[in-house]
Amino acid sequence: MIYERVIQIEFNHCDPAGIVFYPRYFEMTNSVVENFFADVAGRSFARMHLEGKGGVPTVRLEANFLAPSRLGDKVIFGLELKRIGGSSLSLTITGWMGDQVRMTADLTLVWVDDMRAAPWPEDMRRRMEDFMEAKA
Amino acid sequence: MIYERVIQIEFNHCDPAGIVFYPRYFEMTNSVVENFFADVAGRSFARMHLEGKGGVPTVRLEANFLAPSRLGDKVIFGLELKRIGGSSLSLTITGWMGDQVRMTADLTLVWVDDMRAAPWPEDMRRRMEDFMEAKA
Amino acid sequence: MIYERVIQIEFNHCDPAGIVFYPRYFEMTNSVVENFFADVAGRSFARMHLEGKGGVPTVRLEANFLAPSRLGDKVIFGLELKRIGGSSLSLTITGWMGDQVRMTADLTLVWVDDMRAAPWPEDMRRRMEDFMEAKA
Amino acid sequence: MIYERVIQIEFNHCDPAGIVFYPRYFEMTNSVVENFFADVAGRSFARMHLEGKGGVPTVRLEANFLAPSRLGDKVIFGLELKRIGGSSLSLTITGWMGDQVRMTADLTLVWVDDMRAAPWPEDMRRRMEDFMEAKA
Repeated sequence: MIYERVIQIEFNHCDPAGIVFYPRYFEMTNSVVENFFADVAGRSFARMHLEGKGGVPTVRLEANFLAPSRLGDKVIFGLELKRIGGSSLSLTITGWMGDQVRMTADLTLVWVDDMRAAPWPEDMRRRMEDFMEAKA
Repeated sequence: MIYERVIQIEFNHCDPAGIVFYPRYFEMTNSVVENFFADVAGRSFARMHLEGKGGVPTVRLEANFLAPSRLGDKVIFGLELKRIGGSSLSLTITGWMGDQVRMTADLTLVWVDDMRAAPWPEDMRRRMEDFMEAKA
Repeated sequence: MIYERVIQIEFNHCDPAGIVFYPRYFEMTNSVVENFFADVAGRSFARMHLEGKGGVPTVRLEANFLAPSRLGDKVIFGLELKRIGGSSLSLTITGWMGDQVRMTADLTLVWVDDMRAAPWPEDMRRRMEDFMEAKA
Repeated sequence: MIYERVIQIEFNHCDPAGIVFYPRYFEMTNSVVENFFADVAGRSFARMHLEGKGGVPTVRLEANFLAPSRLGDKVIFGLELKRIGGSSLSLTITGWMGDQVRMTADLTLVWVDDMRAAPWPEDMRRRMEDFMEAKA
């Protein structure tokens, strides 16, 4: 299944060439991941941080910027899970508008409890597995 | 009348104390202003920048930060027009959640055409006047 | 006395008009304040946050943007103390290049200990008073 | 040869966990690239943007975040060229403090003239080749 969020490109995201400055894309992918954890995996970032200094830091990413996004564009970001490890998660986020892919990012996150990698809590793992296996 | 937008406080906005870092509030107020111009005043920032290097730079602001906003909060930002000058605009933005005001900002913007202050285009002025006079 | 820092305007700070996006100015003024506390007042932000959840949140500001700053400009920011209160601090930051003032900001900060306003630690107060009274 | 810049981790870069929020690392790597082009390759971003709407957009990146950076850290970023193509450039940036590597990023940039990929100007290519071949 794919988790989708629409982000409107605003002044804040654009560089002097009038297109998205690429570090801002990662603010967007992080927002998508953050909302995915709240909406699908059953843990908001707020709850993660209050309970036991948890979190899901990104340890690795690979991104391709295929076409520029401009002020006013409404870019759809789709998040798909690729692999749920013992304490890691691999996912792909694709940003597109119309039939044009703007960027893709493969991210690896790690579940961290009290500043150390830890096994996924059982309820989160189950929810993520259900999401991964569900048909759209 | 008051123009409202809800902004969810995300990881991206928060500092090591877990509350909104104040420069991020201005990214938010700018987003509210940007959407106001597109939705109410009849000019998106994209259109302003394409047509004659226009824009509405902020020349003055005054802000009070009254209570912190935290990760996960959904803050409502309300924009009210105070005065429409020849080429300037004074407005107030208030951010609140529940019955708690988080911040207020009084901004003065200037309509700029080809990098110089210029009189408001007639259609924009009329739309903004209508908005200012309308009852909620 | 005036505490000065030079900040080079980089891509990261600029908007589609090729000039500094004003929320980025507050990232800059915050950086100047942060370095002032480490260099002059005897407390780095890192130390404040480790010891008793302290900090110096901004509660009020007033800013004027007088002339645009562009990519590549090296803007000098000068910080001057105006008034040291029981637990507050008023200061002015002026950003200029050559003989042109780009922006000014009057900020009021509050010393916070364990999330509550508290009297300035004696050593910080003394250092700030010495700085305020010193001739350049 | 390696081009080095030191960046101090400030409040602005840190997330609620008190460590660098990863999109901010890309603001840093972009700053390193920007200074490299001004100092070594003979074209500041300002000059690129004024002359023919040029620039060096990033088209691909791969990054690993190996250890967190904290408020107050002074991280050294070293940039090394890997391959100078017809209109592309592959480079690696490593951020470290003491003997600990914090992050690495492999970036591919493209030289763009009037919004289209174009062959590197001869003087830039020569300067970059000289830098790549020079011994530290």
